[in-house]
Amino acid sequence: MDKYQVKNLPKITRADLDAAADRLKNWGKWGPEDQIGTLNYTKTEDVVKAAGLVKKGRVMSLALTFDNKGPQGGKTKFPPVGRFNPIHLMLRTGTDAYSGVLDKRGIRSADDIVIMPMQCGTQWDGLGHIFFDDHMWNGYDCRLVSSFGAEKCGIEQTREKMVGRGVLLDVARHFNVDALPDGFGITAEVLDAVEAAQGVSVQRGDYLLIRTGQMEAKIREGNWDYYSGGDAPGLAFDTLDWLHKKQVAAVATDTWGVEVRPNQSEGEGINQPWHWLCIPILGLTMGEIFFLDDLARDCSDDGVYEFLFVAPALPVTGAVGSPVNPLAIK
Amino acid sequence: MDKYQVKNLPKITRADLDAAADRLKNWGKWGPEDQIGTLNYTKTEDVVKAAGLVKKGRVMSLALTFDNKGPQGGKTKFPPVGRFNPIHLMLRTGTDAYSGVLDKRGIRSADDIVIMPMQCGTQWDGLGHIFFDDHMWNGYDCRLVSSFGAEKCGIEQTREKMVGRGVLLDVARHFNVDALPDGFGITAEVLDAVEAAQGVSVQRGDYLLIRTGQMEAKIREGNWDYYSGGDAPGLAFDTLDWLHKKQVAAVATDTWGVEVRPNQSEGEGINQPWHWLCIPILGLTMGEIFFLDDLARDCSDDGVYEFLFVAPALPVTGAVGSPVNPLAIK
Amino acid sequence: MDKYQVKNLPKITRADLDAAADRLKNWGKWGPEDQIGTLNYTKTEDVVKAAGLVKKGRVMSLALTFDNKGPQGGKTKFPPVGRFNPIHLMLRTGTDAYSGVLDKRGIRSADDIVIMPMQCGTQWDGLGHIFFDDHMWNGYDCRLVSSFGAEKCGIEQTREKMVGRGVLLDVARHFNVDALPDGFGITAEVLDAVEAAQGVSVQRGDYLLIRTGQMEAKIREGNWDYYSGGDAPGLAFDTLDWLHKKQVAAVATDTWGVEVRPNQSEGEGINQPWHWLCIPILGLTMGEIFFLDDLARDCSDDGVYEFLFVAPALPVTGAVGSPVNPLAIK
Amino acid sequence: MDKYQVKNLPKITRADLDAAADRLKNWGKWGPEDQIGTLNYTKTEDVVKAAGLVKKGRVMSLALTFDNKGPQGGKTKFPPVGRFNPIHLMLRTGTDAYSGVLDKRGIRSADDIVIMPMQCGTQWDGLGHIFFDDHMWNGYDCRLVSSFGAEKCGIEQTREKMVGRGVLLDVARHFNVDALPDGFGITAEVLDAVEAAQGVSVQRGDYLLIRTGQMEAKIREGNWDYYSGGDAPGLAFDTLDWLHKKQVAAVATDTWGVEVRPNQSEGEGINQPWHWLCIPILGLTMGEIFFLDDLARDCSDDGVYEFLFVAPALPVTGAVGSPVNPLAIK
Repeated sequence: MDKYQVKNLPKITRADLDAAADRLKNWGKWGPEDQIGTLNYTKTEDVVKAAGLVKKGRVMSLALTFDNKGPQGGKTKFPPVGRFNPIHLMLRTGTDAYSGVLDKRGIRSADDIVIMPMQCGTQWDGLGHIFFDDHMWNGYDCRLVSSFGAEKCGIEQTREKMVGRGVLLDVARHFNVDALPDGFGITAEVLDAVEAAQGVSVQRGDYLLIRTGQMEAKIREGNWDYYSGGDAPGLAFDTLDWLHKKQVAAVATDTWGVEVRPNQSEGEGINQPWHWLCIPILGLTMGEIFFLDDLARDCSDDGVYEFLFVAPALPVTGAVGSPVNPLAIK
Repeated sequence: MDKYQVKNLPKITRADLDAAADRLKNWGKWGPEDQIGTLNYTKTEDVVKAAGLVKKGRVMSLALTFDNKGPQGGKTKFPPVGRFNPIHLMLRTGTDAYSGVLDKRGIRSADDIVIMPMQCGTQWDGLGHIFFDDHMWNGYDCRLVSSFGAEKCGIEQTREKMVGRGVLLDVARHFNVDALPDGFGITAEVLDAVEAAQGVSVQRGDYLLIRTGQMEAKIREGNWDYYSGGDAPGLAFDTLDWLHKKQVAAVATDTWGVEVRPNQSEGEGINQPWHWLCIPILGLTMGEIFFLDDLARDCSDDGVYEFLFVAPALPVTGAVGSPVNPLAIK
Repeated sequence: MDKYQVKNLPKITRADLDAAADRLKNWGKWGPEDQIGTLNYTKTEDVVKAAGLVKKGRVMSLALTFDNKGPQGGKTKFPPVGRFNPIHLMLRTGTDAYSGVLDKRGIRSADDIVIMPMQCGTQWDGLGHIFFDDHMWNGYDCRLVSSFGAEKCGIEQTREKMVGRGVLLDVARHFNVDALPDGFGITAEVLDAVEAAQGVSVQRGDYLLIRTGQMEAKIREGNWDYYSGGDAPGLAFDTLDWLHKKQVAAVATDTWGVEVRPNQSEGEGINQPWHWLCIPILGLTMGEIFFLDDLARDCSDDGVYEFLFVAPALPVTGAVGSPVNPLAIK
Repeated sequence: MDKYQVKNLPKITRADLDAAADRLKNWGKWGPEDQIGTLNYTKTEDVVKAAGLVKKGRVMSLALTFDNKGPQGGKTKFPPVGRFNPIHLMLRTGTDAYSGVLDKRGIRSADDIVIMPMQCGTQWDGLGHIFFDDHMWNGYDCRLVSSFGAEKCGIEQTREKMVGRGVLLDVARHFNVDALPDGFGITAEVLDAVEAAQGVSVQRGDYLLIRTGQMEAKIREGNWDYYSGGDAPGLAFDTLDWLHKKQVAAVATDTWGVEVRPNQSEGEGINQPWHWLCIPILGLTMGEIFFLDDLARDCSDDGVYEFLFVAPALPVTGAVGSPVNPLAIK
């Protein structure tokens, strides 16, 4: 598997980024007012067909639970970006009830609150999350994402999307390993090979899930050190062309940042080059920290790697991401 | 419509509550360890059948956006319970990007955070939300919901549920009004009549949505005064037996608190008597503040009041409720 | 008192602001590295002298309590800036204790948390709070205050300041009114007159408190509508020269924003012109929403308008303001 | 120094606690309505005298800065209690200003917010923080501290207190060590010896600060592991009688929890026995995580261990503790 290590993949320069931006730019494709990019690829007929994939009635959640054991708790080599695990607090409790202090209200109830980064666990990255120079998706000025939130491309724009055919490409199982090694670049060549081996073909409008096994390795270890911002297997830079050609609606993985780390641009002052293009240039929504273990076992068991995928974002106005409980329904 | 005003409905006493609790108690029905109650009613075959209802590929969100214009902003007659509209804050912005302060990271990105009560907008009430005396659903001790969260019946238990056949009963349209008046008790008789008129039959395992039109009236008015905790149309006490018999998985409305207000127990020191039983005794999950306008128009247009319903809770460990973006897919 | 209404005061143009900035700029006065501005005016000998003013041993708090009844609850004409009243939540409670759920820890205790804007109640505005064009105090680039907080002029720089001689100028009492009317501009002339009448002279390094009575009027009314961001009595533009000449350490009032509102620049696209200069150009820390009622009564009773003033900011690193419990000790 | 190790000190049983509670109970001493306990010991004349101790005009902060490098970041052996380091977030920034997005407001300003446990750094423990069985200070029912906060003994009751004579007992310097070892019990005998050696006498109404050197050791190490909830030098159980006799207003240390750890009750199911009595029985407010390094150097240099102490709590209504920036003024 060494051939796919990032050290063997081409290094990406700023000139490469600019060239790829020219080649892959979807700006204007869905009109100058569009705020959801490739989510437009999924048509109503695709939703109908995807619903037809439900044969067993099995619902699988692709979310980690949101709590203080989440992936923000580990050590990191990445400069901290202020994310933390969800803080869940009570406004009223069963102990208040037991103590009788609620009885003047005539009802015994509990209530609660959460303080959470939108990108602290299983999450969607919205199209306001990454900028290319001074622009976001569709050419919007990056200053539209100020302290007041995203005036354009807020996650609430997707509230009736995130439904379609889901396809799992289980790269780890394909290579017969529990987890791909850190630095393993999943190239277009690899994706083609997994598609062929699994007998599934990624289509326009699909929600593509890619499994590396890294999350399960961390769970087995019992700690999240170096998961957030650390080295990881992930998508190589050349997959941008592949995803562009395939016209997927969105892509998600079981890692912190989808793309391979260390990045292909290592040593050149550009961090996460795949991100530079994916969100602002292609308009491709991405999912991170997806829990793919149960789904992958099920797909391996029945040999069916397609399913109805429903993963509605929480429509927080002006948000640039969203925690999510994605469901795969087979 | 005056005959359905709460003043004309039977008053509920503590003795009535106790009798109903005996009659309707589902404790133990799904074993002593069960934590999800009537969500168990939906079987895998029901999920398959529900998926078969997707004919047009139309996805409709039943959520209000989560922001500072939400329903917690209004005046209220109810003792405040600490709920507030979501507070959305940025961790990094496009203005940071524009200012160049992110470039040392090699990537320009925005990040954000939300502070929100779990029950501040479109929401699920989990089974840890209401207690009957010292107990919650299935007989668990209410002290299991302490400041540390719900040790039993946390919303994360539902992470692979909230999928099934959805049925809309549009009571407002049935009575040919924009919105039912405050204090209108939707009785079992009314539900039967709407079922018959719409030509739909509520079945075991269904997710039942009931529209009063009140939310849209508030939206038209442009303010939420007295929506939270105020008078409202809603379910009458006798619907508990109806829902129990029908074996619905969950029930949701477009109001703040599902049941009719003022409550049928007015003047007797018991507040929200329907709640006393629904959650802890029947184990019936309920949804509140659902936005049903678009769905109701669609159902009225095509005459089809059933659909695939997918409304995954955010699995915050130990939470007693969850914000949600429920989807109706037709 | 009409002569002091803002309508009768000179209008401030951008050219006036630029001229005043040239005239009043303290940049570099305490070296290029300075981050606390006029707080430097208070010398150690001033602290010793101020301590000598303690004659009765009476300690008076100048803070409103911080809670959900605070001044952020009212209506406002000002574009909302995201401030809200403090949200106080419990991490453990006496009801948990009573319920026995804490006993496994071997100790029964309560804990809590607060979510609060730094400028939601009685507060200091730090020197990172206001910018003049692209600069903050002492010429620092405004981009040093990013989403990561203030790299320069954070409130933590003041942690050993905010101690000195306090002087109260009770303008409302001087004019024999409970509260000055909205739009009343407290001019340099007024300050001179109050000084003379009270027999007190403001000196270099003093902490100057100015009472308008507006807060107490709001408290008597029982609501805060239009306090935050609304019309108010306050300092006229010409007091900037007066404060500059007097070399005060800091200035505070019982209003939301110190300066008179509507502002003298009304209709010219410049809002809060006094602020434009006070913080970034003079380097003058200001206090807002100070509760001056008790202190003012005491001063009126004993005729002594000077005291030891101790009002330590909470040294939150990188903060541009701080809630505070200022003490006047006589 | 081994003789003062906790292993050599008497073990405290429940019977010992009960006996000490009988012996030391101050309930009712300041009337049945009292909510501030020993803070009452400081009289107005004490405040006047304390102000007289200001000779040099030097102001020293005894606070750590509040930020993400605070003492909640370390590993702990103590069951987690939900405390975390302050989370400081911006509502508006200088980068917004630079980007021009604020100019429509006519003023360029930054604003911010903090999310912080009341006991996450340098802090006061209020009298609602600890319960003895079902009671808090002065015999109040512990259920008065519910999810709605402390109805009695909230920290806001102290808003005009926390001013008086401060006395530092520098135990570490007395023993000529940088830091006392973990498990070192500072007994009444030790306190007497330090008083005598320093030539200072603790008096009624004093604010007593006790330095162990542990905090500085952690700062030198560069991490806070095992500071919160870990082993530490601290007050031995017999100091309760000493403090009771001395009638101090409050006591504070540079450790996480004032008392020696492991505790004298080790192995008997009682955790923090000194706490059991200090707050609810004596009504003695305590300060924790005080930064005493600068003050201790100053006292060692000039041989003066008394000073004016001003440490106003932030009057958050119903809070059981408060972050604080305590000042020692000499």
